[in-house]
Amino acid sequence: MDLLTDEFFMNEAMKMAKIAFEEDEIPVGAVIVCRNRIIAKAYNQTEKLTDATAHAEMLAITSAANTLGSKYLNECKLYVTLEPCVMCAGASYWSQLGEIHYAASDPTRGFSRLAERVVHPKTKIKVGLMADEAKMLMDDFFKKLRK
Amino acid sequence: MDLLTDEFFMNEAMKMAKIAFEEDEIPVGAVIVCRNRIIAKAYNQTEKLTDATAHAEMLAITSAANTLGSKYLNECKLYVTLEPCVMCAGASYWSQLGEIHYAASDPTRGFSRLAERVVHPKTKIKVGLMADEAKMLMDDFFKKLRK
Repeated sequence: MDLLTDEFFMNEAMKMAKIAFEEDEIPVGAVIVCRNRIIAKAYNQTEKLTDATAHAEMLAITSAANTLGSKYLNECKLYVTLEPCVMCAGASYWSQLGEIHYAASDPTRGFSRLAERVVHPKTKIKVGLMADEAKMLMDDFFKKLRK
Repeated sequence: MDLLTDEFFMNEAMKMAKIAFEEDEIPVGAVIVCRNRIIAKAYNQTEKLTDATAHAEMLAITSAANTLGSKYLNECKLYVTLEPCVMCAGASYWSQLGEIHYAASDPTRGFSRLAERVVHPKTKIKVGLMADEAKMLMDDFFKKLRK
């Protein structure tokens, strides 16, 4: 796999999702890329942190802002394995994220069905890269949970 | 002012908003009440923390969950001086907040215009307590900013 492609970055997000899976968290992973460098990586930690707001994207956005020393992330791209919910899409609005790439769609809580206008008008949205793998990981997680 | 009334708790949120004002943050304050006890207080700190996600409500929800040792806040009430944005409304969904009381409406970024279905179906919403005072504080802030 070549470096610095969308596939590479989404695969890094997928690695984060797999860590979440191993830690019995809903397996969502995210990375934020600025000028072709990963500046933040995170995975869903709502259980570990006992915090319903600790989605992968929220943690990644806070971490990226911290790294850059700027609350605006206009030049950054978020790669995330599941379609962001409205909370995370709202966070992307406030941070003015340049691009969001998400893998699997979330038909129940994804922002696009509930509130498409939530994201910043300048934020580009790209959908579907590694979607099958991301969806499979989610399905496996909920199968494991039901056991 | 009597203790343990909605007015009392909203006034506590207003005190938080005034601290934000003094610290040159957009003046929004929030408290979370559980069984008539304030378990979290926060004010907007997006500038201080260099984090676009550091809204008063987000900080209060994280803090309340931490205090209770539970990511669910079903028995809690959020008092906030400004209508939550979709990010914060989304956070209230995930934490299943019992009630949200907000003072001033936010016609531009308030959740009710953008995505009313964002909040949890069980969350009760109450609007308008101390709205004039909250709005005046916001107006004063933006006047100060423009100077």
